[in-house]
Amino acid sequence: MNSRPTKLLSLPTDNQPIWAEYAPQHFGWTLDGGVAQVTLNRPERKNPLTFESYAELRSLFQALHHTTEVKVVVLRGAGGNFCSGGDVFEIIGPLVEAGMPSLLNFTRMTGDLVRAIRTCPQPIIAAVDGVCAGAGAILAMAADLRLATPSAATAFLFNRVGLAGCDMGACAILPRIIGQGRASELLYLGRKMSAEEGLSWGFFNALHPEGELHDAALRLAREIAGGPSFAHALTKKMLWQEWNLSLDQAIEAEAQAQALCMMTGDFTRAFEAFAQKQRPTFQGD
Amino acid sequence: MNSRPTKLLSLPTDNQPIWAEYAPQHFGWTLDGGVAQVTLNRPERKNPLTFESYAELRSLFQALHHTTEVKVVVLRGAGGNFCSGGDVFEIIGPLVEAGMPSLLNFTRMTGDLVRAIRTCPQPIIAAVDGVCAGAGAILAMAADLRLATPSAATAFLFNRVGLAGCDMGACAILPRIIGQGRASELLYLGRKMSAEEGLSWGFFNALHPEGELHDAALRLAREIAGGPSFAHALTKKMLWQEWNLSLDQAIEAEAQAQALCMMTGDFTRAFEAFAQKQRPTFQGD
Amino acid sequence: MNSRPTKLLSLPTDNQPIWAEYAPQHFGWTLDGGVAQVTLNRPERKNPLTFESYAELRSLFQALHHTTEVKVVVLRGAGGNFCSGGDVFEIIGPLVEAGMPSLLNFTRMTGDLVRAIRTCPQPIIAAVDGVCAGAGAILAMAADLRLATPSAATAFLFNRVGLAGCDMGACAILPRIIGQGRASELLYLGRKMSAEEGLSWGFFNALHPEGELHDAALRLAREIAGGPSFAHALTKKMLWQEWNLSLDQAIEAEAQAQALCMMTGDFTRAFEAFAQKQRPTFQGD
Repeated sequence: MNSRPTKLLSLPTDNQPIWAEYAPQHFGWTLDGGVAQVTLNRPERKNPLTFESYAELRSLFQALHHTTEVKVVVLRGAGGNFCSGGDVFEIIGPLVEAGMPSLLNFTRMTGDLVRAIRTCPQPIIAAVDGVCAGAGAILAMAADLRLATPSAATAFLFNRVGLAGCDMGACAILPRIIGQGRASELLYLGRKMSAEEGLSWGFFNALHPEGELHDAALRLAREIAGGPSFAHALTKKMLWQEWNLSLDQAIEAEAQAQALCMMTGDFTRAFEAFAQKQRPTFQGD
Repeated sequence: MNSRPTKLLSLPTDNQPIWAEYAPQHFGWTLDGGVAQVTLNRPERKNPLTFESYAELRSLFQALHHTTEVKVVVLRGAGGNFCSGGDVFEIIGPLVEAGMPSLLNFTRMTGDLVRAIRTCPQPIIAAVDGVCAGAGAILAMAADLRLATPSAATAFLFNRVGLAGCDMGACAILPRIIGQGRASELLYLGRKMSAEEGLSWGFFNALHPEGELHDAALRLAREIAGGPSFAHALTKKMLWQEWNLSLDQAIEAEAQAQALCMMTGDFTRAFEAFAQKQRPTFQGD
Repeated sequence: MNSRPTKLLSLPTDNQPIWAEYAPQHFGWTLDGGVAQVTLNRPERKNPLTFESYAELRSLFQALHHTTEVKVVVLRGAGGNFCSGGDVFEIIGPLVEAGMPSLLNFTRMTGDLVRAIRTCPQPIIAAVDGVCAGAGAILAMAADLRLATPSAATAFLFNRVGLAGCDMGACAILPRIIGQGRASELLYLGRKMSAEEGLSWGFFNALHPEGELHDAALRLAREIAGGPSFAHALTKKMLWQEWNLSLDQAIEAEAQAQALCMMTGDFTRAFEAFAQKQRPTFQGD
């Protein structure tokens, strides 16, 4: 084996919470074995988003850029629904009163949340049951993987409130997940996509019965958390980075990225485990 | 409510027809309640395209850029077929005789038609029955939404006439609708895609029985026409605009576009209707 | 008919084999009627790739850029499996020992293979049975069309050896074939995609029973080889070229490319055959 030090430099980062003690005000948080759960938890209103929860979620996902302690994030709702989107009275009401600079501040904040979800190193799993509407549908879309229950109802219903389908990246991201024709339909009509449609169109990776969704999401999260997390983070980064590269550039970009991974301890560990007919234990370095 | 004037400036535009009286020479036209129907109408030859109908369609869709009177367009064929593509004797024959400058003029004219369809503010619904071949398949592909009958037969058959699959944007658009592998197959083989395949691959949004297709297309068109047409036009614009933006740029682009929509009267109307437990009446401003 | 000479200039090319006599050392080769078969042939180990076979495959597909003698390539494995990917002891072992410059040389060589497969003028058909793993899955992905048997098991299992999913273009190409959500799942989990999933997701174009796969691939290859090969090559080039063009640019690019095709003899032959109610015989010029 060549010498390839895996010592971690401790670079200074701002505002990094102690993750085990992290106690957000506007959603639930648990961390166990590298798997974090973020729970939108105003179940009496189907877990709407507010200015405050948007901001705190954005700060969370931005802070996750700097930690290796959290390896996977499950995003879920409390009480049988995922998220009903921006609250009508707490968000839409004030926006109707607001001037352009405030509006742009708001849409940039929501966009920053999607950007932070897509650029943090952790794969994100959305566990979707019940209502998944508006900005809630966007959060599910922004995740890496999506599980749902058979009765989950997803709607990009911006047109219903007089807005455009181009919300938080939807016109770019949704067509890449389900195709341009189906995305156009959902964005022009704001209609519900059934869980069955979502599965058959590739929006959902799998469906699980009501009572089993959250366990299934945790199992999937633990499986990914047990994998090579440095490499996973690079997979995620390149899925973002190659979005609009030419194919020629993408191939060179992957040659560099994969060569990086070949210098990691995890690559060596996998080879040594294989030679000894054992399963590798990945350490993320 | 903040003050946000919705007065429309009347900017000068060229050659704008009086839409209710518009009488094209090479296809049918009706306009009712903001829903236009464009009917390819040479049913005895399965509605082929000619130099003249290409040019007139291009001019129509270019002119539609400047009107808010037409909110949605249904594109259909007469007599049980959608469109058989470029007429062999009226188009292919002359092209075989033509020099390069003429050929490029022709391919640019057909490309301009797709460009005009994709960039006009109205969502376009293709209602496809029977034969949908060559340039006819391209017209369906260029629409926003596609309905079909179970017997509709769609073929990108350019290879059958010695040409490449790269016609009027097909190598860029078709893979985004049905995926790169399926698009490659259709473009190399020129084979028929059945309606059932088209539905399952996301080319068609829905199938309707023969006698019900056109009513279904009209119902869908009216539903969209009753929506926030300023916002719809921005959805369409961003689906075009973000085609090859980075995800980072797309998110910023949508922050700006959605902030625009939040200044419209339709956004305010939707909020007020919601507060009064009524359905909003959108006015497109 | 206008005068459009189809005389072929004989431009100098390097190292062009005599294709009928081409005898590669690390895989099988046959050529019959314009249809080449490349057979990965170390069946006792499920046809793994080695440094030598990577290099020779890359040289083959690069050399194919300069010939019109080979019109279509079928890529297959011997003995009931497609390809088990990079050999653990012949590739992964040495890579674990290697320094960064060697690693980058290696990942660039593998990337060059995908680049050569995507940029050679011949459509490539992968005929996949049995194991299709790691770099083997990449080779299938890089082909234009993919056939498989019902028991084919495809796995992008880079995470299993501590590596990232961004291998040889996978983060760019796989999402365009099966969608971003499904591609993310396969790349994070390294799990097997069944043939049935592959068909339903658009990875495979068709499934054929075990004993019929290779005949089906040959039939498909002959059908394409009988088509207009100059035009096919341009279809393939534009699918590559338009990967990240704006839609506006793609439409202009296709106007130019299709005008080129309208100057070929094959276009004229197709028209003349049609006028005489015969099938055209394409000659690729």
